[in-house]
Amino acid sequence: MSKTVAIIGGGIAGLEASIQLENLGYNVHLYEKDSQLGGHAGKWDRLFPNKRHASEVIDSLKNRINNNVQVNLATQVSEIKRENGAFLVASNGKSQKVDAIVLTTGFELFPANKKEEYGYGIFENVITSAELENMFSSNGKPQMVDGKTPAKVAFIHCVGSRDEKVNRPYCSKVCCVTAVKQAIEVKEALPTSEVYCLYMDLRMFGPGYEDLYKEAQVKGVTFIRGRLSETSELEGGRVLIKAEDTLSSKPLKISVDMVVLMVGMSPLPSTEKLLKNLELTPNNDGFVQVKDYHLEPTHTKAEGVFVAGACTGPNNITDSVNAAYSAALEVHKYLTSK
Amino acid sequence: MSKTVAIIGGGIAGLEASIQLENLGYNVHLYEKDSQLGGHAGKWDRLFPNKRHASEVIDSLKNRINNNVQVNLATQVSEIKRENGAFLVASNGKSQKVDAIVLTTGFELFPANKKEEYGYGIFENVITSAELENMFSSNGKPQMVDGKTPAKVAFIHCVGSRDEKVNRPYCSKVCCVTAVKQAIEVKEALPTSEVYCLYMDLRMFGPGYEDLYKEAQVKGVTFIRGRLSETSELEGGRVLIKAEDTLSSKPLKISVDMVVLMVGMSPLPSTEKLLKNLELTPNNDGFVQVKDYHLEPTHTKAEGVFVAGACTGPNNITDSVNAAYSAALEVHKYLTSK
Repeated sequence: MSKTVAIIGGGIAGLEASIQLENLGYNVHLYEKDSQLGGHAGKWDRLFPNKRHASEVIDSLKNRINNNVQVNLATQVSEIKRENGAFLVASNGKSQKVDAIVLTTGFELFPANKKEEYGYGIFENVITSAELENMFSSNGKPQMVDGKTPAKVAFIHCVGSRDEKVNRPYCSKVCCVTAVKQAIEVKEALPTSEVYCLYMDLRMFGPGYEDLYKEAQVKGVTFIRGRLSETSELEGGRVLIKAEDTLSSKPLKISVDMVVLMVGMSPLPSTEKLLKNLELTPNNDGFVQVKDYHLEPTHTKAEGVFVAGACTGPNNITDSVNAAYSAALEVHKYLTSK
Repeated sequence: MSKTVAIIGGGIAGLEASIQLENLGYNVHLYEKDSQLGGHAGKWDRLFPNKRHASEVIDSLKNRINNNVQVNLATQVSEIKRENGAFLVASNGKSQKVDAIVLTTGFELFPANKKEEYGYGIFENVITSAELENMFSSNGKPQMVDGKTPAKVAFIHCVGSRDEKVNRPYCSKVCCVTAVKQAIEVKEALPTSEVYCLYMDLRMFGPGYEDLYKEAQVKGVTFIRGRLSETSELEGGRVLIKAEDTLSSKPLKISVDMVVLMVGMSPLPSTEKLLKNLELTPNNDGFVQVKDYHLEPTHTKAEGVFVAGACTGPNNITDSVNAAYSAALEVHKYLTSK
């Protein structure tokens, strides 16, 4: 009888790990707390660096899953514990015995209201990058709460990233390039709009990222090196942003119609809860600690428990896909040697 | 009889792919143009983010290779061509028939003398980041050509990266964090030294990178946002660097004892040569083009030819390791379906 693997989380990494483990001959139980597969990417409109539709990527992954993957939607795994060299996975009052575990639980978007001074949840035209994607999906363009089209849009980088005040000292890796992609999309949808990016360092480090940065400059996006200090609301739902321009060392005020907060990737409290029974601890940033950063990036210190994707720290799709292959092959090695 | 795979390049990705393919039951021919395995990492002293010795990582990989990997050192593959559904790999006048190919040819360090105005190869205390690693390996500290200890050291980021003038518009991804690591190491070896980092954007995006940046600041490294325009030589082998401080918008001159050029990752001309017979073309940056950036990051458009590591673009060790697993599993799928 073929062995069984539980994959906890049905985003990019969980889908890819399911595909690979099924191909290798295993039965897979895939658990997804949401009512649909795809994770955060599944709710995104278009992806960097090539502005491809996210649905194309998610659909392709979903289509490669076959009958030996049992998909459990709307299913939050509440506990994983060891029993006689195997694991019991508890969810929705049921318990499933499996031979190995792959944690692909991903992340949560930084709750923007924790940066109270940025006005999210207070001023209605202060939105998150995820909400902007949603507008692109449904309307093809950003829209103010009163239905008007914004003439001036400001993107604020590093919201819940590189910020010790909110206990997120690390960089979230994908927000800079996402902001630049979204800024281009705003200019494409609304060519007469003024678009600003307020950044600390522009971290455009991957293939095609610098090309996007150049495209944004050509399309007229204004890049300002500075950190937002606070927002306040003006008449008509407009927003005043106050920052320091760290290139000119001058305080800066801009009134805009819409502020987009580039929310970072935060560790999920529900993941940390799962670690306890497995005698695992999170790393300094609160994500799942891998066994060896260089050599065993998809092992944990717990035998039979592997890990892939953004639950180990901020990650992009490509690196999550490769990590999922890596975890799948390590599961295979573990189960064939048992 | 088990099938045979050629792996072209014995750096991190090639070693990991060899290990995984041997584990999956294949015969592996590993080709390395250098006289030893390990690639660039094998010549490095310590690695970011944890300052672990590179030799520990390379030795661990080498020790996991067994008898079904035939290692060919000092062997430059000159041609790969298809024959009857298989491949012929030509090197040193010999030819080997194999069933699949994994390209793990890596990169070359940007030839610093191409930025003539930086003085490399002209002024003797202008060195590269690789040469500094070599000094750490052999002396534990930087040393000027006359044997003296430098009192002032400047690190220049983005040499052969983000620079259209030398046809390298892309970011090399690892130089910022390497510079910060090396700056810390200089301060540790020579606590009274003055150390400067001249950067464009500090791209500290991975796990532990921001912690290194903080450590460098605590240890007294001075970070200057600016781009080097030129160097000139002063008495006693000292070097005058001229730059623009883009935070204060002022021109900047600093005289230092040693300049370290953070050379980026460039595509290898010998790799591009191999692509031709396989009907593959390089991507915009000159690296090997992958089939699908998001979904098939270790496929090429050529059937039976897979790819991993920095020959697809600048990459770090962790992501190269995972890509090698991914390529190995795709080779396995390809060869079992044939």
